[in-house]
Amino acid sequence: MKKQFAVIGLGRFGGSVCRALIENGMEVLAIDRDEAKVEQFRDIATHAVIADTTDEKVLKSLGIRNFDHVIVAIGDDIQASILTTLILVELGVPHVTAKALNAYHAKVLNKVGAEKVVHPERDMGVRIAHHLISKNILDYLELSDDYSIVECIAGEKLNGKTMVELNIRATYGCSIIAIKRGREIIVSPAADETIQTDDLLVVIGADADIVRFEMDLIDS
Amino acid sequence: MKKQFAVIGLGRFGGSVCRALIENGMEVLAIDRDEAKVEQFRDIATHAVIADTTDEKVLKSLGIRNFDHVIVAIGDDIQASILTTLILVELGVPHVTAKALNAYHAKVLNKVGAEKVVHPERDMGVRIAHHLISKNILDYLELSDDYSIVECIAGEKLNGKTMVELNIRATYGCSIIAIKRGREIIVSPAADETIQTDDLLVVIGADADIVRFEMDLIDS
Ligand SMILES: Nc1ncnc2c1ncn2[C@@H]1O[C@H](COP(=O)(O)OP(=O)(O)OP(=O)(O)O)[C@@H](O)[C@H]1O
Ligand SMILES: Nc1ncnc2c1ncn2[C@@H]1O[C@H](COP(=O)(O)OP(=O)(O)OP(=O)(O)O)[C@@H](O)[C@H]1O
Ligand SMILES: [Ca+2]
Ligand SMILES: [Ca+2]
Ligand SMILES: [Ca+2]
Ligand SMILES: [Ca+2]
Repeated sequence: MKKQFAVIGLGRFGGSVCRALIENGMEVLAIDRDEAKVEQFRDIATHAVIADTTDEKVLKSLGIRNFDHVIVAIGDDIQASILTTLILVELGVPHVTAKALNAYHAKVLNKVGAEKVVHPERDMGVRIAHHLISKNILDYLELSDDYSIVECIAGEKLNGKTMVELNIRATYGCSIIAIKRGREIIVSPAADETIQTDDLLVVIGADADIVRFEMDLIDS
Repeated sequence: MKKQFAVIGLGRFGGSVCRALIENGMEVLAIDRDEAKVEQFRDIATHAVIADTTDEKVLKSLGIRNFDHVIVAIGDDIQASILTTLILVELGVPHVTAKALNAYHAKVLNKVGAEKVVHPERDMGVRIAHHLISKNILDYLELSDDYSIVECIAGEKLNGKTMVELNIRATYGCSIIAIKRGREIIVSPAADETIQTDDLLVVIGADADIVRFEMDLIDS
């Protein structure tokens, strides 16, 4: 059976969660107290209702306890966010994820029983700061505090070089684990694989090693 | 020489960008028209000033043209965001990144010359929706629309199995490219490497193949 989701608060963050869940084939009940917001989701969500979720009776009448996962994406109104989360937990919703504005808000959400607390603006701020600092790193995945996988674009310096010639593992301590060239993806490139300008390189390693690799071979 | 950054708008997103840049050793001028916000960054940022950035004279007097990169993180006041971006571009700031609220806002920011436009709430909404759908996937990196690298945790089902026994490439089409076990990271695990419960597996492959792998071997 399909999992049933409900999203409360259809701002930029909640609206995006709602759209992405639907695009991935999930069933989603979209809720906001603002009629205009709900109108925007009328044709997108499985159901869309105008409701103030700080009212327990309203949530009960929506049968909210039958949903597997409810996302509380209420923003600036911290009190409404906390009260809504508390009611959801008390009604027995199995999984409640809530958006926090700050550390204090996060603490209270955890206390009242939110399973997961998210900080979209804070987390995206950190990600974007990383992109600003090293322009060559397109995206990254942290494996630990000091170990990452990063995506970067091969420039002229690497054009025509084979993996064995570059011997990146020995020189820098990090490894190229995949190359994306146009629509093709080469996993664990062989020793004779030749890098071309504009190849997207997927590199794994200690952050410090990746930085040395990037400064030597990627920076223009 | 160190790169000079300025962040305009110290809300949740802008404040986070500012903090992360500073934690990474960058020099950052923090600007907001709200005195209380600026106070919060007085001891964190290299400099913190109260200013309304829709006033060209103010920006000039701050010597903003000497900054390498300015981030416009003004949110709800779309007009102030657009006007600030326009002035920065006209004053000759080499790199301007601006936060957009919606597609229309993004279009205008691009037109007036922002080098990069970001949508923190929207993008984090998509990321979090992915986490909600598959609870086993801790984080992911998109290589293309249908090809990704994901992090997932090995459960009981995989405990004690060697790479050669599992033969994931042949069965599912995707590959385990790294294993994180405690603080150790094993890149390109050998055929006789034995998976243990709670190992963090880094898997690369087509999204559909990863889903099959996950449903068979990770889901509990
Ligand atoms: N009690 C409530 N019941 C239902 N919806 C609510 C309630 N309180 C607030 N909302 C809705 O939550 C949505 C998000 O709130 P708000 O815009 O304050 O958050 P935000 O953090 O600035 O959002 P974002 O950054 O995601 O755009 C709004 O559409 C608002 O109408
Ligand atoms: N003209 C301006 N000059 C300087 N700062 C400004 C100007 N207009 C708005 N700001 C500041 O920008 C900051 C972010 O704005 P706002 O809180 O509306 O955005 P937001 O998108 O809801 O933020 P977030 O989601 O990141 O918390 C605020 O601290 C505000 O004082
Ligand atoms: Ca807001
Ligand atoms: Ca790190
Ligand atoms: Ca916001
Ligand atoms: Ca995708």
